[in-house]
Amino acid sequence: MSTDQKPQAAPDTAFHSAVQRIAQPAAQQTVTRYRLGQPAHSEHDWLAQEVPVAMVYNGISHAVMMASPSDLEDFGRGFSLAEGIVDHAGQIYDLDIQHTEEGIALHMDIAGAAFDRLKQKRRSLTGRTGCGVCGTESLAMLAQQVPPPVQGAQVSLQALLQALQALPAQQTINQLTGGLHAAAFADAAGNLLLVREDVGRHNALDKLIGALQSLPVEIRSQGMVLMTSRASYELIVKTCRAGIPTLACVSAPTTLAVQLAQQSGLCLAGFARGQACVVYAHAERIRD
Amino acid sequence: MSTDQKPQAAPDTAFHSAVQRIAQPAAQQTVTRYRLGQPAHSEHDWLAQEVPVAMVYNGISHAVMMASPSDLEDFGRGFSLAEGIVDHAGQIYDLDIQHTEEGIALHMDIAGAAFDRLKQKRRSLTGRTGCGVCGTESLAMLAQQVPPPVQGAQVSLQALLQALQALPAQQTINQLTGGLHAAAFADAAGNLLLVREDVGRHNALDKLIGALQSLPVEIRSQGMVLMTSRASYELIVKTCRAGIPTLACVSAPTTLAVQLAQQSGLCLAGFARGQACVVYAHAERIRD
Repeated sequence: MSTDQKPQAAPDTAFHSAVQRIAQPAAQQTVTRYRLGQPAHSEHDWLAQEVPVAMVYNGISHAVMMASPSDLEDFGRGFSLAEGIVDHAGQIYDLDIQHTEEGIALHMDIAGAAFDRLKQKRRSLTGRTGCGVCGTESLAMLAQQVPPPVQGAQVSLQALLQALQALPAQQTINQLTGGLHAAAFADAAGNLLLVREDVGRHNALDKLIGALQSLPVEIRSQGMVLMTSRASYELIVKTCRAGIPTLACVSAPTTLAVQLAQQSGLCLAGFARGQACVVYAHAERIRD
Repeated sequence: MSTDQKPQAAPDTAFHSAVQRIAQPAAQQTVTRYRLGQPAHSEHDWLAQEVPVAMVYNGISHAVMMASPSDLEDFGRGFSLAEGIVDHAGQIYDLDIQHTEEGIALHMDIAGAAFDRLKQKRRSLTGRTGCGVCGTESLAMLAQQVPPPVQGAQVSLQALLQALQALPAQQTINQLTGGLHAAAFADAAGNLLLVREDVGRHNALDKLIGALQSLPVEIRSQGMVLMTSRASYELIVKTCRAGIPTLACVSAPTTLAVQLAQQSGLCLAGFARGQACVVYAHAERIRD
């Protein structure tokens, strides 16, 4: 369930089918395996690719993320939605993927209103560079990032755990490389509908949010997001912005994540593994 | 060894001794525990705190990171070094920690030359906000981030694995909360000399690099950094900037991390657990 699990061998066919829809999220390389009391030996192994991906809006480069080069169209759409750069997917008129020597650029044409807001936000930062929390450079700016409220029906514990159990088999690139997180969406019955992978957990969630736009809003608003990571505050904000009312993570949440989940109506589960989970916010929404 | 391990119960005394040198990196909270086939029940649990920490240089707020509020002085010094804002610790004249309603601000007075360079870098970004890779907003900027070369003697496999084995017992806050990464430094004999924890792995390494300044350079240049996480490219850059020649991570590296380690002379091990590890760059530096 964690990103640390890695099978000893993986068939090439799994990889080749995984890259068909995308670029190359994994690459083969010679490594040296050491074990105490045994001679070292060289072997081929699959490694996760980590590539700079620039988000470019109406010709202006806005941000660069280190990401797995897969599902890039989902990534561009999901980042734009989850960061509040556009209000809905319809404000992205066009998305063009350009490979350069330095990395990948996602060129997006966005609606004038969204671009004006982005320029305004950037102008207010004149002469400054941001870092760490998506361009946020002062404590006052961060305090404004309150997620929108979400609402949802009760979720069955059995459906939640069943979806989590089905997840590792869908983590195709992680099975090869062992270095990726997954973000997944399951419907109210616990059926896994979408899985996206990335070396970064925020990127994985952005990709999922981009892919989610293909599902009807009735399904989205009754389903849940599953993450193979811990729950930090950004994941709460992104999940709420996507309008998904439940988030289950396999590891621990932070206090700030819990506080934001409580405020926004998000049902937040952590340490969700095997037969059990711990619920940190809106436990009334879990049906056991 | 991973951040996912969490004991069922932890004594309050362990926490209270852990917070003596710092602020409060963990907080207690009521949670609801669910298990299939059993009634849900409420209990108290410790959660990792995640707090916005602003890095302020000569009065100008430069960046905000979400971090564990522990070892903040190490964090300020290590961030400044690992991000190349100062060239050596002596360029930080003063460091003052201020708690505000919105978070924690680390006010640093830095040397004029370092501040001028920072202002210059910020001026070249006029009207733009950065994101993702520490303020980097274009692919061209990122290509300039090549780590400095490092050199070191051979490392014994036994010493490396012995240090990793000793690490979980030193992860005091993670034992309580289950949500933190650790960055540690061990000498050539495998003795753990320093351990720092944070909700973010980059922050944990920044804190370690800040704390490392108290050790003689002869020990630093022969030792190794251990991380409870995967190895992404930023960890390679930070470790090289700190002048440590060996990095061992418990999980997978990415291709870019391996490439940078090969170029810069860093010995990079991954999946370092129990009796074994996989070496991805400069395997000639491991003595088995």
